[in-house]
Amino acid sequence: MRAALRRLARALPAGEFTLDPAVCRAHAGDKWFASALPDAVALPRCTASVARVVAFAHRRGIFVTARGAGHGYVGGSVPVRGGIVLSLARMNRIREIHQRDFVAVVQSGVITQKLQDAVECKGLFYPPDPASRSECTVGGNIVTNAGGPRCLKYGVTRDYVLGLEVVLANGTVVRLGSRTHKNKTGFDLARFFVGSEGLLGVVTEATLKLLPLPPYRAALAAGFSTTRDATRALQSIFRAGFLPCALEVADAFTLAAAAKRAGSGRLAGCQAHLIAELDGQPRSVRSELREVERVIRQHHPRFVDRALGAAQCEQIWQVRREFSYALRDTGLTKLNEDVAVPRSRLEDLFAFASRLQKKHGLPVACFGHAGDGNIHTNIMLDRTQPGAEERSRAALDDLFEQVLDWGGVITGEHGVGLAKKPWWNLAVPPEVRRLHATIKHALDPKGILNPGKFVS
Amino acid sequence: MRAALRRLARALPAGEFTLDPAVCRAHAGDKWFASALPDAVALPRCTASVARVVAFAHRRGIFVTARGAGHGYVGGSVPVRGGIVLSLARMNRIREIHQRDFVAVVQSGVITQKLQDAVECKGLFYPPDPASRSECTVGGNIVTNAGGPRCLKYGVTRDYVLGLEVVLANGTVVRLGSRTHKNKTGFDLARFFVGSEGLLGVVTEATLKLLPLPPYRAALAAGFSTTRDATRALQSIFRAGFLPCALEVADAFTLAAAAKRAGSGRLAGCQAHLIAELDGQPRSVRSELREVERVIRQHHPRFVDRALGAAQCEQIWQVRREFSYALRDTGLTKLNEDVAVPRSRLEDLFAFASRLQKKHGLPVACFGHAGDGNIHTNIMLDRTQPGAEERSRAALDDLFEQVLDWGGVITGEHGVGLAKKPWWNLAVPPEVRRLHATIKHALDPKGILNPGKFVS
Repeated sequence: MRAALRRLARALPAGEFTLDPAVCRAHAGDKWFASALPDAVALPRCTASVARVVAFAHRRGIFVTARGAGHGYVGGSVPVRGGIVLSLARMNRIREIHQRDFVAVVQSGVITQKLQDAVECKGLFYPPDPASRSECTVGGNIVTNAGGPRCLKYGVTRDYVLGLEVVLANGTVVRLGSRTHKNKTGFDLARFFVGSEGLLGVVTEATLKLLPLPPYRAALAAGFSTTRDATRALQSIFRAGFLPCALEVADAFTLAAAAKRAGSGRLAGCQAHLIAELDGQPRSVRSELREVERVIRQHHPRFVDRALGAAQCEQIWQVRREFSYALRDTGLTKLNEDVAVPRSRLEDLFAFASRLQKKHGLPVACFGHAGDGNIHTNIMLDRTQPGAEERSRAALDDLFEQVLDWGGVITGEHGVGLAKKPWWNLAVPPEVRRLHATIKHALDPKGILNPGKFVS
Repeated sequence: MRAALRRLARALPAGEFTLDPAVCRAHAGDKWFASALPDAVALPRCTASVARVVAFAHRRGIFVTARGAGHGYVGGSVPVRGGIVLSLARMNRIREIHQRDFVAVVQSGVITQKLQDAVECKGLFYPPDPASRSECTVGGNIVTNAGGPRCLKYGVTRDYVLGLEVVLANGTVVRLGSRTHKNKTGFDLARFFVGSEGLLGVVTEATLKLLPLPPYRAALAAGFSTTRDATRALQSIFRAGFLPCALEVADAFTLAAAAKRAGSGRLAGCQAHLIAELDGQPRSVRSELREVERVIRQHHPRFVDRALGAAQCEQIWQVRREFSYALRDTGLTKLNEDVAVPRSRLEDLFAFASRLQKKHGLPVACFGHAGDGNIHTNIMLDRTQPGAEERSRAALDDLFEQVLDWGGVITGEHGVGLAKKPWWNLAVPPEVRRLHATIKHALDPKGILNPGKFVS
């Protein structure tokens, strides 16, 4: 294979393909713990190069694992069977932001936050806001269908994909969808590649829908004595006819860690924390914030903080972001799960998480997108303890079984990758797995794209 | 084949399968003009019967064309090659409306408006609102990915599909997706069947996402002396950071017909008409309505009417609905096209439509979902005139070519069906057509589902 790879390197523009071991090592994994060395790394600057690499690999049956910034949480871009890692990081141009069409055209490797900043300068809005948006790429967001807090009101990445340029497994370049906000021409192929985790094609360019930028934001942050009060407050907000921009909950373990990090006595006294953000016209947001605060106060919060305007909102989100760092401060390994449950099961999920903690002797920290029922249920692992790995595996078995039993799902936004692969058969019935295999085989008959994942 | 069909009739519960010519005639077409007689009609009451019909047809290579209420506008459910028409009209049960999960589970044959009324009673909201919602089915909406005025703010049917039960071409029943609001388990198969026009499987049940019902609605209706003023007003509304629930525009021909029908002098003087609807919390909506009215008034409207609350809004929408009836009053055949253009091309589209009118000597009436760039460009045809058919075909050629040239699409919400099939090759490049064929062949290798459409 190495001779063939060297030939490919010569056929591509200088610097676009390397077998250098250091570069290979730098492309062996993502933010999950698994890694595997590829044989070569492609760093194309344009779609033609991507097509060339994929077509070459297809002819010779060489594996190709595409990646963006390598910021996934589930090992989705780990090249478990070697071959070529195809990084789209250099394809990072924003080709177009059209103010009247409400459309952006970007290459896959554009950093999400860069796109957001660029469109906001023009009074436009690209809502999807994964926590890692300052480091992850739009292409990575597309193939994992990334979410984030604002998805409660605004939907996930899929809802903003109008068109895609995709390199298919045989190297054919297809342009799917369009730049119109509505399109019913044929099958919905562009969106079918969204969330496909690199198994069906390589996304090289996206045409994204933009919204008018809401001129104002405001938020509330409330501490509660019980998670029950927090989840009931959340339900009351919906019942009053509000669909906030974001509704986030954090549990006692998370708050204790955050309190320690921040030295905040106020957080330490809380068993649950709720953030509600609203956006829209200034006058509306201010009056709605008062109303949402009134609803929250019916559920006995220990405190309610108000944030008016973007700067104050960012302070509240800074606290939320600190949750992750605080959990890291504990010195434990965070198994960052992202189950989603039907909304009515939120209270049950928090209760189950604390039972899990007792049963397996492992701390469990829950926080996340409560409005969506999508809670990061983090099992905290001390790898130095004997038997910790086995206990965490048993705890995950229990968690996923319970979540599926409630009609929930094992992954709400991170994807399956390698991390959830052991539970793929539990989560997906055989006939649906067969349907996945049928489609994979139709689009990638030689199985060269991102092998070793949930469909091989 | 008739002997086989009779055997199938006997194998199914009484009344679920018939070869009765009168029933066959009643299932030969939809709202478009084409029709074709099926050999038999299946009227199943449950998924098991659907699976039985499809599995039987698959074994014997008999064509199956599924349909809901037969309310499509493009001949999508016309059984052009005979075989079995599979009507889902009797599978019309709302199985569940869950107030805290914000989920509804419905059989395919539920009438859209019935679902909407049922959820609104519980303070919930199912936004997709195709014009025919009092007659069409949720299943029909799903396979065509139906839109409607409110889709500007709330998205199309696809955005509300969390899970689907689908009978595949070989009769296998699969349950795709889930009842959680977020799910990243595997490929996005549930939504892939949305908009597939019955070519990939038969949708029997859907799990739909619901929203909190916005407690208040208000609307503005404005008349303008030029379409240019109307489209500029629309752009100014977006620029001010508003994403109204709906933004609808109608042109001079439509208004003249409506004025005649309603005897309204005020409409007669207008060249364009704009409706903007807002929804949300009462106080916010009222203050935002004033702001949107201020924006509209900068563009020299001849009048602006204000509607506060649902009842007054319905009056404004009644006028909008009359546009269709008024065009029917002209005695001409309305070729109900539904092109979509990038938003910046709205003004160009209206101008092009009037040039088209002159060039081909056919009236063209434009109205629709301007906010989405999705305009019903209705070519009005007097079938008694010699050469009228040819001229209308030539006018459609010109229209679609121009729309595609602007980066628009030949269908924004009705689908391809038979009506747009002649322009399928123009609208979709060969490699994307091949991708359609690959997927069709993988999911329906014998080609029994809805044959004779855009992929056979």
